[in-house]
Amino acid sequence: MIDLFGGHPETNSLSDASDVQFLDTTLRDGEQAPGISLTPDEKARIARKLDDAAIDVIEAGSACTGAGERETIQRVTDLDLDATVTSFCRGIQNDIDLAMDCDVDGINLVVPASDKHVTEKVGTTPEENVATTADLVEYAKDHGLWVEVIGEDGSRADLEYLEELMAAALAAGADRVCYADTVGHATPDRTLEVVSTLSDLGPTSTHTHDDLGLAVTNALVSIAAGADLVHGTVNGIGERAGNVALEEVAIALDHGYGVETMNLEAVYELAQLVANKTGIPLAPNKAVVGQNAFTHESGIHTDGTLKDDAMYEPYPPEKVGRKRRLALGKHAGRAGVEAALDEHDMEVTDDQLGEIVSRVKKIGDRGKRVTDADLLRIAEEVSGSDREQRVELLDLTAVSGVSPPTASIRLDVDGETRENAATGSGPVDAAMNAAVEALSHEIDAALESYHVDAITGGTDAIVTVEVEMSRGDDTVAVSKSDSDITGASVTAMVEAMDRLIERSDRVIADD
Amino acid sequence: MIDLFGGHPETNSLSDASDVQFLDTTLRDGEQAPGISLTPDEKARIARKLDDAAIDVIEAGSACTGAGERETIQRVTDLDLDATVTSFCRGIQNDIDLAMDCDVDGINLVVPASDKHVTEKVGTTPEENVATTADLVEYAKDHGLWVEVIGEDGSRADLEYLEELMAAALAAGADRVCYADTVGHATPDRTLEVVSTLSDLGPTSTHTHDDLGLAVTNALVSIAAGADLVHGTVNGIGERAGNVALEEVAIALDHGYGVETMNLEAVYELAQLVANKTGIPLAPNKAVVGQNAFTHESGIHTDGTLKDDAMYEPYPPEKVGRKRRLALGKHAGRAGVEAALDEHDMEVTDDQLGEIVSRVKKIGDRGKRVTDADLLRIAEEVSGSDREQRVELLDLTAVSGVSPPTASIRLDVDGETRENAATGSGPVDAAMNAAVEALSHEIDAALESYHVDAITGGTDAIVTVEVEMSRGDDTVAVSKSDSDITGASVTAMVEAMDRLIERSDRVIADD
Repeated sequence: MIDLFGGHPETNSLSDASDVQFLDTTLRDGEQAPGISLTPDEKARIARKLDDAAIDVIEAGSACTGAGERETIQRVTDLDLDATVTSFCRGIQNDIDLAMDCDVDGINLVVPASDKHVTEKVGTTPEENVATTADLVEYAKDHGLWVEVIGEDGSRADLEYLEELMAAALAAGADRVCYADTVGHATPDRTLEVVSTLSDLGPTSTHTHDDLGLAVTNALVSIAAGADLVHGTVNGIGERAGNVALEEVAIALDHGYGVETMNLEAVYELAQLVANKTGIPLAPNKAVVGQNAFTHESGIHTDGTLKDDAMYEPYPPEKVGRKRRLALGKHAGRAGVEAALDEHDMEVTDDQLGEIVSRVKKIGDRGKRVTDADLLRIAEEVSGSDREQRVELLDLTAVSGVSPPTASIRLDVDGETRENAATGSGPVDAAMNAAVEALSHEIDAALESYHVDAITGGTDAIVTVEVEMSRGDDTVAVSKSDSDITGASVTAMVEAMDRLIERSDRVIADD
Repeated sequence: MIDLFGGHPETNSLSDASDVQFLDTTLRDGEQAPGISLTPDEKARIARKLDDAAIDVIEAGSACTGAGERETIQRVTDLDLDATVTSFCRGIQNDIDLAMDCDVDGINLVVPASDKHVTEKVGTTPEENVATTADLVEYAKDHGLWVEVIGEDGSRADLEYLEELMAAALAAGADRVCYADTVGHATPDRTLEVVSTLSDLGPTSTHTHDDLGLAVTNALVSIAAGADLVHGTVNGIGERAGNVALEEVAIALDHGYGVETMNLEAVYELAQLVANKTGIPLAPNKAVVGQNAFTHESGIHTDGTLKDDAMYEPYPPEKVGRKRRLALGKHAGRAGVEAALDEHDMEVTDDQLGEIVSRVKKIGDRGKRVTDADLLRIAEEVSGSDREQRVELLDLTAVSGVSPPTASIRLDVDGETRENAATGSGPVDAAMNAAVEALSHEIDAALESYHVDAITGGTDAIVTVEVEMSRGDDTVAVSKSDSDITGASVTAMVEAMDRLIERSDRVIADD
């Protein structure tokens, strides 16, 4: 018999929930993730968005890292945000001085708490560590800073020692102490035990990592045990498996317990900004902000969602600044396909619908996504309303490696051959420019989005390209797969433009 | 005051932990995620790996979806695995017949449980639903099947009705009933309440989704409340934000409570297989199986890890079939850089080390990753041991769009100009072939890995290419960023081959 909450069930409550605040460490612990480096401009832009999202404390960086990092922290403090802006500092007076040079409001002072970190890493003794911590807190408070003391590796620390260390920090004037599950080691019972102990001493924050998949669990358990400031990052980026994702804690508290924290509607834009600037992509199945979090493809789910939006969703996507999406694939059903055809103003008979569903499933069975263009082509074939193709790609040559990259394209437009050449920043860009120019008389098309899945394996891997092109309010998405990225991209673009031209003809005819 | 566990603290235990089993639904609920479709071969390969990893029950698909899906299920049942192989069935007798046609061992019979699903979606009444469920269970049991009854949307169901429905299923002979948090709506307290109630009736499984980031929390709470079979998927793929990731539940149970479930060492290979075959990539910060889960870059963490492997890790990477990785970037420190130089047999003075660290940080400050090649170039410049470059890329022309894609390359090799042309499956592949052929006298190099991050935005986006090339046991990684993917790829490959040639010279000289 293993007890999930180690005999402390009496503290299982999200107490005084209205007081839960967030400390965002995307710009510090988040940026420490391998391969991330944010420029001063990027940090400032993210900080401004965090402030707009009503984040309470923004840890802007670690001043001791170097001159470049101090410049970025200074850029954030210069913004004069509503949020408290802090720097991470090691237990060294010079780190505090460097942080003050950047005009921060406060510091997150990290001192070792576990035996391993006190003796092996920092090379001090438990007694000296307590004394130094108290001295540094006094020094920082004397200089008017807000001071949070983080007991590093606190989840693996001896609890009596951690209590002594944190009590000394509070006695020396620290504004709060932080329970740090630095290595993502803690179970909920350990978290409950330690946070309960610390929050009896004074204001307590919680800093959890996701190595065991328990970052959100431990953040919630910490709140239940008395913590009222949650450390986390946007998208859960950070060292190793990352910190807890603030958007997940926020939605769990809001949906599950009616507790408001950050501005949820700002979450999606924030997630995309951080993913783009850090280069750490979001998995499609990432909670709240992943591409598929509000997408329904399977027949049962699409059918249910068409009957009632809430059938397969815990909360509406608009709550987090998003929209619902219905997709087609191998699990497609009649209701979903009919709804998609409706969107394109296509009416078919019941028999035709059955045949279209069957062909959509067949594409899905081959492991392909079914795009708008696929659906329309099938529907046209099945309903016999085979449309006239206005534009056809006859030939394409793209040359790269020379400067500038160049492409030529030959198209059949309404039976006439048309040629054009253009340059671009790469072969795909050059070919795209050539195609758009060649069709400028027919259509004023814009590329809405261009996406290529990550390529892993060899140089001969099949690449899937998805393009979305628009003309005014009308958009068409087409995807193509090929081992030649240039060929796949241009074929998709030309097909999308052909669709848009055909539809604009139809609109004119309808008028 | 909000109570995290709704007044049921007495059941907060992972009871009888040795009995926790896993049902993997990667091939059913996982595959229902948008854009996924697995071929029969792929499903069979994944099923075999799941069986090797000691998964207890494999839900191989949903027989009612179509002929293609039934073929894939049949492929899995033909493998004669140790695991129980099942099909998902709706509450329709024909679905059960179709499942039996595929020779499954059992079925996961889904029946509506919430008001919304009973009346709005399925269009029946609560009473009829109970009666139909009991009839279908009897039918399936009469045909010798293992039967699990899933009360769909159970987390939003009226608990008394759910109890009545599940009691009827068990009375009709069902082997177990499943608590389904179908839409990822439940808080831990709701989960505890419902699972406690169901497990008082009979054997209970739990099926959790991650819409609120609580999939792992709710799986653990379910076990504490008496569930002994956990539904989940590899990598947490599935509808919307996905199902609970089995590898996370497994490591949390193992590390946190000493409870063994699946074979943990098999987890990483399984994760990669599923990511590759489904096309759903793993975020670098994904717990347990993400690229960065055991990578340390920041100075403090690298320094600590070099002193003691466990300094910043909750458990060793080997436990889940992985290796630790130290990376260099803007947060690099002396210890990490010195260790990386050691790996390349480079010795530098203390002053030189300081200068190298500073230059590494500068590259990092510009938002770049620091590869082996970057580090070696810097170290050579700083230490004055500027090596002679053996191979230089003079010119490159890659032509695509025509068939076959063709590239020509001009290299300076030891002062002599060498030209070569080759074809390939795309422009990058052609250029790569041309370069490898051109240098075949100098080196027998192989491309170990080729990776391009996902491209999002426009056709003129900067693309980062990472190549790893090897000669025997020696490998070199180089990354280049450019808006021309071909140029970036070939520049990186040629630089990697130049490094390998130089090192092979050094080895010969040392002999």
